[in-house]
Amino acid sequence: MRSWVEGANEPDLNHLPYGAFRKEDDVRLCVRIGAWLLDIAACEKDGLLDSLTANVRDACCQPSLNALLSLGPEAWHALRHRLRELLEDTAPGDIQTRVDWFLYPLHEAQLVLPVDAGGYTDFYASLHHARRVGELFRPDNPLLPNYKHVPIAYNGRASSLVAGGTPVRRPRGQRRPVSEGAQPEFAPSYALDYELELAFVIGQGNVLGEPIPIANAREHLFGVMLLNDWSARDVQAWEYQPLGPFLGKSFATSVAPWITPMAALEPFRVAPVAREPGDPQPLPYLVEAADLRNGAFDIEVEVLLSTEASRAAGLEPMLVSHGSTRELYWTASQMVAHHTSNGCNLRPGDLLATGTISGPQRESAGCLLELTRNGVEAITLPNGERRAWLQDGDEVTLRARCEREGLPTVVLGECVARIHPALQTLSPAR
Amino acid sequence: MRSWVEGANEPDLNHLPYGAFRKEDDVRLCVRIGAWLLDIAACEKDGLLDSLTANVRDACCQPSLNALLSLGPEAWHALRHRLRELLEDTAPGDIQTRVDWFLYPLHEAQLVLPVDAGGYTDFYASLHHARRVGELFRPDNPLLPNYKHVPIAYNGRASSLVAGGTPVRRPRGQRRPVSEGAQPEFAPSYALDYELELAFVIGQGNVLGEPIPIANAREHLFGVMLLNDWSARDVQAWEYQPLGPFLGKSFATSVAPWITPMAALEPFRVAPVAREPGDPQPLPYLVEAADLRNGAFDIEVEVLLSTEASRAAGLEPMLVSHGSTRELYWTASQMVAHHTSNGCNLRPGDLLATGTISGPQRESAGCLLELTRNGVEAITLPNGERRAWLQDGDEVTLRARCEREGLPTVVLGECVARIHPALQTLSPAR
Repeated sequence: MRSWVEGANEPDLNHLPYGAFRKEDDVRLCVRIGAWLLDIAACEKDGLLDSLTANVRDACCQPSLNALLSLGPEAWHALRHRLRELLEDTAPGDIQTRVDWFLYPLHEAQLVLPVDAGGYTDFYASLHHARRVGELFRPDNPLLPNYKHVPIAYNGRASSLVAGGTPVRRPRGQRRPVSEGAQPEFAPSYALDYELELAFVIGQGNVLGEPIPIANAREHLFGVMLLNDWSARDVQAWEYQPLGPFLGKSFATSVAPWITPMAALEPFRVAPVAREPGDPQPLPYLVEAADLRNGAFDIEVEVLLSTEASRAAGLEPMLVSHGSTRELYWTASQMVAHHTSNGCNLRPGDLLATGTISGPQRESAGCLLELTRNGVEAITLPNGERRAWLQDGDEVTLRARCEREGLPTVVLGECVARIHPALQTLSPAR
Repeated sequence: MRSWVEGANEPDLNHLPYGAFRKEDDVRLCVRIGAWLLDIAACEKDGLLDSLTANVRDACCQPSLNALLSLGPEAWHALRHRLRELLEDTAPGDIQTRVDWFLYPLHEAQLVLPVDAGGYTDFYASLHHARRVGELFRPDNPLLPNYKHVPIAYNGRASSLVAGGTPVRRPRGQRRPVSEGAQPEFAPSYALDYELELAFVIGQGNVLGEPIPIANAREHLFGVMLLNDWSARDVQAWEYQPLGPFLGKSFATSVAPWITPMAALEPFRVAPVAREPGDPQPLPYLVEAADLRNGAFDIEVEVLLSTEASRAAGLEPMLVSHGSTRELYWTASQMVAHHTSNGCNLRPGDLLATGTISGPQRESAGCLLELTRNGVEAITLPNGERRAWLQDGDEVTLRARCEREGLPTVVLGECVARIHPALQTLSPAR
């Protein structure tokens, strides 16, 4: 299987992640192929998608993927199949000529979020993350009694989801008073952190009141994106009791601008590895044969950091940690089944994020909170700089790839964002 | 000031709450006047709103208020002014004849939610609620140290917001194991509760990264609705550590189908009363002269309950509790300023709910958790039935009114919903 597109290889043709880009005043859906993006709406208008049903063709011309997501797996497969036909080197010459008109160089494109995420749920699916964070704050009792029974999650703030590439302004916020009876301080967060996560994009939703059984969960998943759940740890520590994280998270959440379809990830399914001897059996609504067999994904994940100094020295982004999503305690299907078990409705485009992806080793910890033990033990970067927390000008890059012998490698779209300084004051009242 | 509309009185003309109703395949915006609703889009199409600008007229023909909300206070005032002109008895006879065509009897209308709420934030603004709930679970330390500094809140689930009138299905969920080492149970919630709340509807939003100073907060508020934040207390108690409430809340949140515009509430502003001697001064970003003067509202609120037995006996809904929103510790402007203080963006149609509105007396507690001390002391209803928690068939009605001598009374739209039995099993996998 090869592509006629200049520079595109078999892995590119196999991957075909979905995105969206600005074209004059419009936002257009696209897929990535090599160093190019293909304008899907332009293909449709040119008649290249005439073999598809009218509702799929109409969905291709929308400014977000939501309409396509709502159509379900058959529609997704039909579109993916047709796009591959257009891009394979077996496509007739006149087709290639027509498609070539709608390819644009990636480096010139202004990418935007390809989904309108009405809901953003953040799970806590990494046992290693939960335990290490617990050790910091409850050394005697690091893992709460509910952890191995309940796929813990909270509602994130959907309005502040931004596409990777968008600068993130350091937030201001309240932090704990320095002594009892003192006033809390309101200032730029000094404990700014990233969280390495994977977000599952919901395809078809469910009707309010009608749970999705775990055996049906996979057909509700459209794809995945890397997600950076920025966290102001000082703000979070002061505000989070008793109702959970709020302003410590809601100033921005960056997501990679490319959605890898589940179809491209299926070959990388594996059995979940995080269970420990003596672990309780999850309740029946969270258990299913296929999920036990291969409900996890073997996706290698990395966090890289560049700083003002490292960039000035011409250095590449520096590796900070690396791990794998197979270390997660809860699977995507368990997240869907749990989320809807009370009747809560999911909608097309909703994001279900894993929470920080951390492995058993310290170097596989997916956030600075763990790596620096809440800022106490600064890490030393390869260029000699030290970091307890993120500084202004730091740029965090999340990367992920699936590799398996005999299979084309899938490299997920990066999630990159740079920290800009805080506002010095709140904007003045008008 | 009188209205020519049959049966409508001065308070009706003064109130004019916004709603939306189904008209054939459409959803139309409307205002309520007496026992009627006025189809706003029909007025526009008939030329009755020609004195308004094109963007306001266009917003009037949308299926939700969001477009109007995004236009800001001048647009809201212009539309309200014009609608009053049409409905006052000083309107010319030919105008009255034309408007009369677009009045429909309220009791025949199928109402739907008039806003598309992308975000639903739930605050914890009642000190009395926070303290009484704290006493149940932390008798030695009921009020957490952050409470009087931070307007505590969490992100609610927006997808499961439903208009009052929609039945609410009792959720199933996990609850705490009966003994250490036992399995948790997954079953219909036995500890189903209501929460009496007021939701502020955001008009114009703010740009991500640009906080709304407290002095500007009022101009971002469009109106209010009663809101019932249903809570499955057994599910919530087991799941909420460490990330806050999730499935214990997300099965449904009912909101009254009528939005009372802030313009109708302005005369009922009062100074907040909840501060106690020795309370800390809030940080400067939460303090403003006008807010100290009259940042609260004196809205009397009530919870009523009807049961299968009470309805069979022909009884009216029975009063369970009554209080006032002036007892809240944090004002709407403080909520807006806090929510955006980290740069988080609000969007038109977002809901900022107060959290349970409870007063200092036990009979002013806005949920059963407080009234029954976590289900331990069942309350006796006026018809002799007892309730620790809600039973199937129970119908909760939230009511609210503003009264002040010399002013027309404003009666907010009720929020009513009935509990339906849980699904007996999760729906089978296909």
